[in-house]
Parts: sequence; C-alpha cells; structure tokens
Amino acid sequence: MLKYQQIAMDIEKYIEEHQLQQGDKLPVLQTLMTQFNVSKSTITKSLDLLEKKGIVFQVRGSGIFVRRNKRKGYISLLSNQGFKESLEDFNVTSKLLALEVRKPTPEAAQNLNMPSDGEVYYVKRIRYIDGKTLCIEESFYNKSIIPYLNKEIVSESIFDYIMEGLGLKRGFSDLYLYAGMLNEEEAEYLGLFTGAPKLCVETIFHLTNGQPFDFSKVTYHYEQSQFFIQANSYLFEQETT
Amino acid sequence: MLKYQQIAMDIEKYIEEHQLQQGDKLPVLQTLMTQFNVSKSTITKSLDLLEKKGIVFQVRGSGIFVRRNKRKGYISLLSNQGFKESLEDFNVTSKLLALEVRKPTPEAAQNLNMPSDGEVYYVKRIRYIDGKTLCIEESFYNKSIIPYLNKEIVSESIFDYIMEGLGLKRGFSDLYLYAGMLNEEEAEYLGLFTGAPKLCVETIFHLTNGQPFDFSKVTYHYEQSQFFIQANSYLFEQETT
Repeated sequence: MLKYQQIAMDIEKYIEEHQLQQGDKLPVLQTLMTQFNVSKSTITKSLDLLEKKGIVFQVRGSGIFVRRNKRKGYISLLSNQGFKESLEDFNVTSKLLALEVRKPTPEAAQNLNMPSDGEVYYVKRIRYIDGKTLCIEESFYNKSIIPYLNKEIVSESIFDYIMEGLGLKRGFSDLYLYAGMLNEEEAEYLGLFTGAPKLCVETIFHLTNGQPFDFSKVTYHYEQSQFFIQANSYLFEQETT
Repeated sequence: MLKYQQIAMDIEKYIEEHQLQQGDKLPVLQTLMTQFNVSKSTITKSLDLLEKKGIVFQVRGSGIFVRRNKRKGYISLLSNQGFKESLEDFNVTSKLLALEVRKPTPEAAQNLNMPSDGEVYYVKRIRYIDGKTLCIEESFYNKSIIPYLNKEIVSESIFDYIMEGLGLKRGFSDLYLYAGMLNEEEAEYLGLFTGAPKLCVETIFHLTNGQPFDFSKVTYHYEQSQFFIQANSYLFEQETT
C-alpha cells in the first residue's frame, strides 16, 4: 500500500472514531499535514482518494467535509469487499454448494470473452446474514487465468488469493442489475415462494490489463438486501462547470 | 465546459463513430495531441475523465483501451442524464400526475435535511419507454433552494433549469436501491398485478456545497428496467497496489 493510501485509511478511521456526521468539517490541510506528518502533495492525494470513495467532499475555498453516514444494513454496490465490509456489524457466513472444473455456460463464456470449450472453476455458494439467507452466488473463474482453487481458498477470500497468492491485479468491473421473480430452485434455497421478487446482480471482474477473469451472478433475498451507491460529482463535471 | 471536457466528449464521439469495441486501443498520446490540437496536460486530463466515466481504461506502459460496450437497454445508475442518455435509442416520454407545493413527508424531510414544516415542490410522473410504462417517479425539491417550478419546466429538464436557470451547481448523490412487491396503486400505474416485483431507486441529490436539494423515489416496472454500473479500478487501489 502506498503512503497516500495509508493516510487515506487513517483519515477514514479518524472520521469513524470521532463519529463525524455529514457536513462535519475536517481540519484544514496544514493541520492534517502536521497530524499525519506528511507533505501537502501526499495529503492532497489522500483526500482525492477519499472523495472518489465517497467518504468526503471538498468545497472550493471552504474546506473538506464528511459525507452522510450510509443507511444501516445497506450493501455497497461499489465496494471491493462487497457485503463483508458494508455489513460488518452483521454475522455473514456461507455454505459451499459446488466447486468444480467445467465448461462455461454460453453466457459465462461470452461475458468472460473465452472459448466455449475452455474451462472454468464454477463456485456456487449460499450466503447468510445473522443466520438468514442473504443470497445465492454463482461464479465462473476463467481457469486459464485462475489455474487452481480449492475448498480452503473458497472458504476464505477468493479475491485475496487471486491478488496475493497469484499476484494478479484487479481492475475495473461491469455490474448489471435487475429484478425478477424467483424460480422454484431459487425460492427453495432462499426460503421464499416461487414467483417472489428477486434482485440479481451480475458482475464481470477484469484485471488491470482489461481481461475478464470472473463472471458472477448473485440472486438476493429481496427482504434481506438493500444497496447503496455514493456517486461523485466528477461524473457530472461536464454539466456543472 | 472546460477545454479538457470538450476534448473528452470528442474522443467519446470518435470511439462511437469508429465503433471501437472493448479492448480496442486508442491512438498514442502524441497522435491524440496532434489530432485534437491540444497540450499533453489537457489530453491527460481528458483521458482521466474518460477513465472515471468508464469509457476507457489505461494500462501502464501499454496504452489506452476502450471499455466494453454496455448491454443494450440497460440504464446507467451513475449517469447524469439518467435513462435519457442510456436509452437514447428508445422513445422515452412522460406524463405529469402531480406538481404542487406542500409539506414534505417525514421521509422526504429527513432525506433533504429540512424542517418538516418547510415546503417542497412535489412532482409525480409516469415515464414510458417506447409506449410501455417504465416507472413511477416522485420527487421532492426543497423550495427554499428551488423556489419555483411550473409545468413547462417539469416537462423539459428540471435539472437543466436548476443548473442553467438558477445557476446552482450539482454535486454528489446518494443512491439507495431495493426490490419489493408492488402495492395496488403502483401495480395499476405500471399495468402489473399487486405483489409483482418492483425495483426502487431512491436518490438524494446534493449541491456542490453538500446541501441536499432533491429527494426522488422511482419505482420501476421490473420487465422494462435493467441497470448497469461501470465501476473503476481506483475503488480497489488499496487492495491491488
């Protein structure tokens, strides 16, 4: 981790520990520089990262302010850690239903941009939150990129293994989200009736070189899942300047 | 619009016109500088903006590449223009159901961080896509920030009016998303049965100074609505470096 990223984490911790609320002002740059014993350029980079992550917002000529606390129990759609981080106050567990090497489904092959006669690791899990069923998760890992997975890796963090164990670098992701009705199998897993609402999130994860390595489909229990996104103003720069 | 923003739009147009696909490489910096007749610092800022917007990705030492074309018919959750831009190939129309000054609901007052005896403009609309019902939209605008709205403004773009007419600057947004079952009234509007799935998106829009000015609740027809998010790698910088 680079210096400015460490400082960004420290500032985030500072905000949490002091229970700062939306609109609360952070100390001025000079004070932060002294407090964390870093240069102006480092602290500026740290604050830019925090702004991108939706932790703070900067008002020109006025200062740096804390963004609203998220609603409790909402899952961040843009967080790396997925529900683990968002739901840290909850007990999230999972049960492995399948872990096998197989041919990709046509849909998985297309989304992974791989030949349909290639091989993937297929992982199917149920996730629970405080003992209640949160979601069914199916993931397809391109085996030519992720050559090995086992039960132990899957029961810990697959992503930690991919990044640290295999030394791969994670890049951008494409998320697709829609609602629908549960089929019989999904309803049984989630403990709901066939035809009940479902919320599905499909994600294509890429390496920094743009190669897709994981296609995942998650079907959420609509009563246990709520999502949030903290969107940034730079997305609207063209319209507001 | 600033120079680098204009150039970013031009590059986006170039990508569209040349029908570049995911993984296609853009010309090198020097060529782009010559082609658009701008400095290196401008072109770099343009490319950074395009990366933030999910249009391109940069691979260190290798070049700038185009990101995958979105799936057709998906609505960007992070786009400024909302479904207008995402669904530009479709005919999106709307019908105004209500436009009135009233007290905010307790929920709206809380999300707008305003007193419950203050006043809001309440706007309720149905949106159609190619003649089919897409969603029901309810918005609450804090009247102390948006002092005036009328039918004409509402039938055009309220946001254009707020930015250009009132000269306000739009900042970050908080989005909350969940699935549920339609109640009787919603089902009637959407032409579905009571208890059918619904996808709800609540958004709190803020000015650049952090003040919330609009709280909106949109209930989508689950068969007409699908969403996508192009997430960036900087969100994972801490884990991948």
